[in-house]
Amino acid sequence: MSSELLENLKKRYLTIRNNGLTNVLKIQDETISAIRTFLKKEGFIEILAPIIGPATDPGIRGAKQVTINYYGVPFKLMSSMILYKQMIITSIPKVFALSPNIRLEPLETAKTRRHLTEFRQIDLEVAHATCKEVMELGERMLCHVIDEVKSRCQMELGERLKSLKTPQRPFKRYTYDEAIEILKNKGITIERDGEIPWDAEEALSRAHSEPFWITNYPMTARGFYYMEKEDNPAFLEDFDLIYPEGFGEAISGGQREHRYVKLVERMKKNGENISEYGWYLDMVRMGIPPSAGFGIGVERLTRFICGLENIWDAVPFPKIAGIPSP
Amino acid sequence: MSSELLENLKKRYLTIRNNGLTNVLKIQDETISAIRTFLKKEGFIEILAPIIGPATDPGIRGAKQVTINYYGVPFKLMSSMILYKQMIITSIPKVFALSPNIRLEPLETAKTRRHLTEFRQIDLEVAHATCKEVMELGERMLCHVIDEVKSRCQMELGERLKSLKTPQRPFKRYTYDEAIEILKNKGITIERDGEIPWDAEEALSRAHSEPFWITNYPMTARGFYYMEKEDNPAFLEDFDLIYPEGFGEAISGGQREHRYVKLVERMKKNGENISEYGWYLDMVRMGIPPSAGFGIGVERLTRFICGLENIWDAVPFPKIAGIPSP
Repeated sequence: MSSELLENLKKRYLTIRNNGLTNVLKIQDETISAIRTFLKKEGFIEILAPIIGPATDPGIRGAKQVTINYYGVPFKLMSSMILYKQMIITSIPKVFALSPNIRLEPLETAKTRRHLTEFRQIDLEVAHATCKEVMELGERMLCHVIDEVKSRCQMELGERLKSLKTPQRPFKRYTYDEAIEILKNKGITIERDGEIPWDAEEALSRAHSEPFWITNYPMTARGFYYMEKEDNPAFLEDFDLIYPEGFGEAISGGQREHRYVKLVERMKKNGENISEYGWYLDMVRMGIPPSAGFGIGVERLTRFICGLENIWDAVPFPKIAGIPSP
Repeated sequence: MSSELLENLKKRYLTIRNNGLTNVLKIQDETISAIRTFLKKEGFIEILAPIIGPATDPGIRGAKQVTINYYGVPFKLMSSMILYKQMIITSIPKVFALSPNIRLEPLETAKTRRHLTEFRQIDLEVAHATCKEVMELGERMLCHVIDEVKSRCQMELGERLKSLKTPQRPFKRYTYDEAIEILKNKGITIERDGEIPWDAEEALSRAHSEPFWITNYPMTARGFYYMEKEDNPAFLEDFDLIYPEGFGEAISGGQREHRYVKLVERMKKNGENISEYGWYLDMVRMGIPPSAGFGIGVERLTRFICGLENIWDAVPFPKIAGIPSP
């Protein structure tokens, strides 16, 4: 990161007065409002997301969780509310929250222009749903949001109004294996059992002018809570939505493992410390419904809609790996 | 707390399935939606609240802040976003957020039935406004919310539908001194330079059938960011709204000290470590507008609207002092 950019970030409390950010924040407000309106029409209830708890999502791609001392017991700041979504759908079958997340990302993410250490997701979950159903929901949601924001924020979008197109549904779908093949043809070779690295994902994203899905990531790449594919347990019933034009990951989600025995197997395979997940395992043992859901990063969506180069201009108080700015 | 209640709290991940909580969560969703609709009509923009930062609100009545290690630098979990509200109004003159807060409350608060260690506020701020103006806004907001929820959640409110009345405006206003006198006449004597203790506030609340304001708390009782009264600097330009029927504090707010020299004086009087507030003081020195605003606790509002005995039934994942429940 250039020293000028760094200074600008550290002095956000002074530069926040500039008009560009005001437009972005108005667009962000309309974006979140449009998501809320859409999901409520679909029968979802919005709940208050947890901030801290005894355990949180370990599947966070090399980022570190933050542990605090909660009256003598180690508690985590939520890295995602996935475990809590599986709890709440026993009560509310279609649920979402604007969920606050903290992930201490590796220092090199300060250069990706799309990583924040403090961020929010619209995190939704649907009891008894499949991947296919929530992917279809995600497509309609994204199209609705872009339509709404384009009609409500013409002035604030400025130049971006023309280039921001409402995508055609259904979006293109690749399996992870197909995505790896496309990358190979571009001269980018990656390991077949891990995440697609940021720069490879960005190259894929740049090669597209519409958002597209990647499904069925390898079991070894993701958190224990995704269900394995029945016909090929090395791969998962999961998906990412990738924005076009180099903006990268939009949505991450999938179907959840709700069967106690399978879940414990997966946790052991992933090297989890089972004793940290007492309440969660107790709950799953008592029975929870199968479900599918996803999270969509609010700042990344704002970045895409506004066409911003840097994610830190998509949030009022940006937190970047290694930079202790307010 | 009875051991039965304690067990119930610890096993919320199983008991959450009961229907009572579903009704409360629907009412909570409508409550927050009604606030959003109201504030947006009034010209407010909603922003994303901070979760962590180098400094946070020290004026939290005996609760402890949580400190984390943020890339080698001590960061706090937000106990309130007051300092950030003063930043954002340099860009957006009418602003609000659903702000996530953590306060490690003293163990005895587990018995008050109205303290959570993890909670949310609708936190709003208006540049160039006075206490009088934001109090009037708060009154209209509360009346609007009660009207809306009563019309939208008749089934979910059940018995409470009859007893929940839309208050008469303007609400009754007492100064802190007057409130102390009323308490004295009830045989409750309290120190004239501190907060009104929980039990005394509850007694006052029980003696009323409509919400009421208490204004002008003593300087020694509250955070450094409230402006002193011009004619009597021992007291502040601030206010609390108290719910009737024993439900206690609803809103806390006031006019902010925006003058650098005065602010530094106040911080020193309050024994603050000035070095923790580098960016904040730098910002105030560069000039920020005067402002007034308040926070309204979302869970306490839900408790009042639903007429719940315990605050922990007003939130899906309750966190109580000393109890490490999920």
